Amino acid sequence: MTTRPSTAPPADPSARALYQSMSGLAGPLSSGEGAAPDFAAAPRAAAGREPSVLILGAGVGGLTAAYELSRLGYRCTVLEPQPRTGGRSRTARNGDELYEFDGEGDSPVLTHTCAFDQGLYLNLGPGRIPYHHRRVLKYCTDLKVPLEPYVMETTANVLHSAGHTPPGAPWRNRRIANDTRGHLAALLSATLTGDDEFTGRLRDLLRKFGELDEDGEYHGSTRSGYTEPLDVHAFPAPAPPLSLAELVASEFWKHRFYQPTDYLWQPTMFQPVGGMDKIVHALTEHITSRYDVTVELRAEVTSVDLTGDGVGIGYRIGGQELTASADYCVSNIPLPVLRQLTLTGFSAEFRHAMAAVPYAPTCKVGWQANRRFWEDDHNQIYGGISWTDHPITQFWYPSNDYFSDAGTLTGAYNFGAHAEEMGKLAPADRLRLARDGAAQLHREFLEKNTVPQELGVTIAWHKVPYQLGGWADWDPSDQDHETAYKQVLEPEGDGRFYVVGDQASPLPGWQEGAMMSAQYVVAQILGLLPRTAPETVRVPDAAALTQGL
Amino acid sequence: MTTRPSTAPPADPSARALYQSMSGLAGPLSSGEGAAPDFAAAPRAAAGREPSVLILGAGVGGLTAAYELSRLGYRCTVLEPQPRTGGRSRTARNGDELYEFDGEGDSPVLTHTCAFDQGLYLNLGPGRIPYHHRRVLKYCTDLKVPLEPYVMETTANVLHSAGHTPPGAPWRNRRIANDTRGHLAALLSATLTGDDEFTGRLRDLLRKFGELDEDGEYHGSTRSGYTEPLDVHAFPAPAPPLSLAELVASEFWKHRFYQPTDYLWQPTMFQPVGGMDKIVHALTEHITSRYDVTVELRAEVTSVDLTGDGVGIGYRIGGQELTASADYCVSNIPLPVLRQLTLTGFSAEFRHAMAAVPYAPTCKVGWQANRRFWEDDHNQIYGGISWTDHPITQFWYPSNDYFSDAGTLTGAYNFGAHAEEMGKLAPADRLRLARDGAAQLHREFLEKNTVPQELGVTIAWHKVPYQLGGWADWDPSDQDHETAYKQVLEPEGDGRFYVVGDQASPLPGWQEGAMMSAQYVVAQILGLLPRTAPETVRVPDAAALTQGL
Repeated sequence: MTTRPSTAPPADPSARALYQSMSGLAGPLSSGEGAAPDFAAAPRAAAGREPSVLILGAGVGGLTAAYELSRLGYRCTVLEPQPRTGGRSRTARNGDELYEFDGEGDSPVLTHTCAFDQGLYLNLGPGRIPYHHRRVLKYCTDLKVPLEPYVMETTANVLHSAGHTPPGAPWRNRRIANDTRGHLAALLSATLTGDDEFTGRLRDLLRKFGELDEDGEYHGSTRSGYTEPLDVHAFPAPAPPLSLAELVASEFWKHRFYQPTDYLWQPTMFQPVGGMDKIVHALTEHITSRYDVTVELRAEVTSVDLTGDGVGIGYRIGGQELTASADYCVSNIPLPVLRQLTLTGFSAEFRHAMAAVPYAPTCKVGWQANRRFWEDDHNQIYGGISWTDHPITQFWYPSNDYFSDAGTLTGAYNFGAHAEEMGKLAPADRLRLARDGAAQLHREFLEKNTVPQELGVTIAWHKVPYQLGGWADWDPSDQDHETAYKQVLEPEGDGRFYVVGDQASPLPGWQEGAMMSAQYVVAQILGLLPRTAPETVRVPDAAALTQGL
Repeated sequence: MTTRPSTAPPADPSARALYQSMSGLAGPLSSGEGAAPDFAAAPRAAAGREPSVLILGAGVGGLTAAYELSRLGYRCTVLEPQPRTGGRSRTARNGDELYEFDGEGDSPVLTHTCAFDQGLYLNLGPGRIPYHHRRVLKYCTDLKVPLEPYVMETTANVLHSAGHTPPGAPWRNRRIANDTRGHLAALLSATLTGDDEFTGRLRDLLRKFGELDEDGEYHGSTRSGYTEPLDVHAFPAPAPPLSLAELVASEFWKHRFYQPTDYLWQPTMFQPVGGMDKIVHALTEHITSRYDVTVELRAEVTSVDLTGDGVGIGYRIGGQELTASADYCVSNIPLPVLRQLTLTGFSAEFRHAMAAVPYAPTCKVGWQANRRFWEDDHNQIYGGISWTDHPITQFWYPSNDYFSDAGTLTGAYNFGAHAEEMGKLAPADRLRLARDGAAQLHREFLEKNTVPQELGVTIAWHKVPYQLGGWADWDPSDQDHETAYKQVLEPEGDGRFYVVGDQASPLPGWQEGAMMSAQYVVAQILGLLPRTAPETVRVPDAAALTQGL
C-alpha cells in the first residue's frame, strides 16, 4: 500500500448533476419513491494512478464502500477485527460463538455457542428489508441474493398485556385491530348530523371503514374472526367484539401494536433466503474474488493518524503490531469504539461529536423449537410479531420454511430500560426471563422438549465487542446532536477520513442507511459531491426509525 | 363395478361424537379457529364388503371425497369430462387450450391457446389460501405441496378512480389508508370534551391510531410515504396528505379498497409454489397411485338413475356410450350442469333446488410481461392488488418469483354486470379492454413489447363448458335459496346420491368450501353424520364471501 495525494477534483456543479442523474427518477408515482444510485456511469480511477483506500470495519457500510470503490479501480483494503464480516448483520447458526463484555475485565468473554440444529438460523441483527429500501434490494439483485417475503404482521398474532380482560389472556391482532376500528367509526358516525352529500358519503365511508350496520353502529365483525368453526350448514358469525372500554383500558397501542402501519414496516418486506448475512457474504465474496480487495479478518485497528500525506493506520493481528497507509480512509467503526482508538490529527469538533451520541442498548433472544406449534390449528400463526408488556417486548415467528418440522423464534427484541436490565443478566438468566415472557404468549414454552433451554441464544448488543450498541441513538430534540451529526458527515484530515455506516445516515439501525452513507462518501471520494457536510443537516430520530415510536 | 346395498349404519350419537373428536380443538385461542377433521380414526370398510362409489367430476370436492373414501377402503371411480382434473382450480401454462361456449352453437369452441413462455403460469380460478382454511393447508402438508406466501395487499399498490384529483392519477394504497385514518381520528378527537381517564386514553389511542399531533390534529404522516427520497442529511418528511374532501369525493371505498381487511383475505395467505393446480395434481396422483382409484378423463356423464338398487350412471367417452353403477354417487358437477343431465328417480324438491341458484358470472385476464416493471424504482410493487373503477375491477401482481425477469399479471377479475359485459366480448376484444384498464394503472401497458397482446389469456367462467359460472351465487336474502340450499345438503335416492363442492358449502368460490363439503358427505357415507340435512341451515352469502362486499 502506497501513499499518494488525493487526486479527485473537488465537486463542481456538473459533477453534482452527474451524481443526481445516477439516482434520477421521473414519472407520476415517483415523488418520494427513491432509487439506488448507480455508480456505473462514474469516472474510473486513471490507470496507474489508482488511489488507495483503507476501509476500517467490514460491516454493511464498509463492504458497500469497498464494492463501489473497487469496481471503479480504487485499491481497497478492509480491516475487520472479528473473524467474520458483517458487523451487526449477523445470523446465528450451529457452532457460532457469541462474545460479550461481562463487566468484569477488559476482555470480552465467550457467553455461549449456538447449538441450533444444522440448517436452522436466526438473524441477531437486522431482520427485514422494506420495499422502498432500494439500495439493499438493488445489491441483492445485482449479487443474486435470493429474497423471500418477510411477514411483519398477521392477524393471527397476539398481544399480551396485563391490562387485558380476562387478565393475561392474549388477544388476537385481528380482534384488537378491527374492533377498535369499528368502535371508533361508530363513535364518529354518531356525531354526524348533516344530511348533505359530503356527510352522507362520510357515513358510507365509516360503515365500510369500521364495518358498521346500517344505523352506523358497531356490533362486531367477521374481520375479527368467527365465533365458531364453519360447517356446511353454518354461516360465518362474527366473534363477539372486545368492548371499547376493554380496549381503551388495556392501552394496547402502547405496546407497538401500530408499528406495522409505519412506512418502514409496511408490506411487502423481504428477507434473504437462509439468513440476513447472505448479503454481507455476497458482498465479501464479490469484492475479494472479482476485485482483489483484501479483507483482513481479526485485524484490530488501534490508531489512525491524519498528520501525514495520507492516512496512517496502526493495527494488530494476533500479537503482531502492523501499520498501513493509504490516500483515503473510510471508517465503518461504531463511534463509541472509534473514540477509544489513538486518534492523531483529528479536530476537536470531531472528537466532541464522537462522544456526543450514545449507542442504543438492545437485546435479542433466539429459540429453536422442535415443533412449529405456532402454525398448528390452535395458533395458526405464519410469521409476524406478537407484542407483550413483558420485558421481552416482542416475539417474532419465522417468515421462512413454513410447514416444516422445526424452526427458530425471536424470543425478545427490546429497547431502552428493558434492554439495559436484560443486558445486565447473565445469558442463562436472560433465557429464563425470556422463557417466562414467551410462556405468557404460548404455553408450549412450558414444555422444554419443545423449546430446549440449552438451544437458546441471546445477545446484548451494547455489550458486544467492536459494536457497543444497536445503533447511534440520534435524537433531534438534543441540541448537541445537531452539531454532532453534521460533524460526523464532515470528512476529517482535509478530505481523507470519512465515517460511514447507519450511524451517519437518516436510517439508524437499517442496512439501507449504511449503504446510503457509504454511497454518499463514495460520491465524495469520487469528487461527485463536495467534501464538506451539507449546510442543512437534519438529525435522525433513532427511536422512531428503529421502534416505530 | 358392482351394485350392492348401502352397508353403513345410520349415524347415532356415538358416531357423531367420534366425528366431533376428529375435528376437536381446545385451548384459550381456539374459539372459532377451526381444524380439518382427520378421518384416520374412522372405521375402515369391512374387507370383502368394500362399498363402491362413483364420483362425478374431478374438481376439488370430488378429488377430496375420493381421497378420504379410498383410503378407508371404499372403491372409488372418478368420471371427469375434461382432459384434466381440477375443475375451476386451473392454472394456465404454455400450450393450454381454453374453450368457451360462444353463444352460436351447442358446442364449445377453442378461444385460444396459452402462449406464455415456458415456466410462467397464472391461476385462472382460485388464487389464494387464507391461514384459517385448515383443510386446504392440511392437504397441502400431507401431500407435500410446497406453499409460499400470497401477498394480498402492499401499501405500494394503487387505486385508480375517476373521482380522483388530479383526474386519473392513481393514488398509492398507503396514502389512501393512512390519510383516511388520520382525518377520521382527528375528526373524532375534536369531538371529545371530557377530561376523565377514559377520554384521556381515548385521545391517546387516536393520536397513535391516526398519527395525530399533540393537539389531536392530522397534518400528514410518513405512513403515507416520504415527500422525497432520503439522503444522509435529510429527515423523512411526510408526503403531503390527501385531504378528507378529496378522499370522500373519490368514494375510494366503493372499489374494494378495504377487502384485505376481511377475515378471508387477511395475512398470512398462501399459494402453492408453481400454481394452484399443484393441489389437485397431488390429490390425483395420490389417489391413483396409492389407492388404485380410476380417474377417467374425457368421460362426460349424461344420466343418473336412482331407481335401481344402487346408482346407475350413463356416460360417454369419445363417441362411446357407457354405463356404470355403484353403491353411492358423489356429484361434484356444478348444479347448472347437473340439471341438464337425464336424471331419473330424483325428487321434485331437488330438481327445484338445482334450478333455484344462479351461478355467478366472472372473468379473468392474464398477461405475460417480459419485464417486471411493477417492481422497479418507480412502482416498487411486490404482490398485492391494485383496484380500479374500470371494468377490469382489479389487477393482481405476482406473489412469486420476485426480482426475476418476466412475470404474469392478473389483468382483470370482475363480477356482476362487468363480468357479464366483458364475457360477451370475443377474447381478443376482452384483452383490448383489459389493456385499456391496465394502462390507466401502468403506462407500461402502452408498450406492446413489454406486455405482448398475443400472450394474453382470458376466461369467462360462466361460458366455460362443464362449469357455467364462477360459483353458486347463494343469497341469504332470497327466500327460494333457503329451501334450495337445504335441499342440496339433503342426499337423494335414500342416501345414495350426494352433492359436493363449494356449491354445497358456506364458502362459495373457495377450495376450503369444496373440501369441507366433501368431508361432510364422507362423514355421512361413513355413517358418522346423519344422512339428512341439518334442521337449521344458513344460506351462504356468496357476494360477501367472494368479493368482500
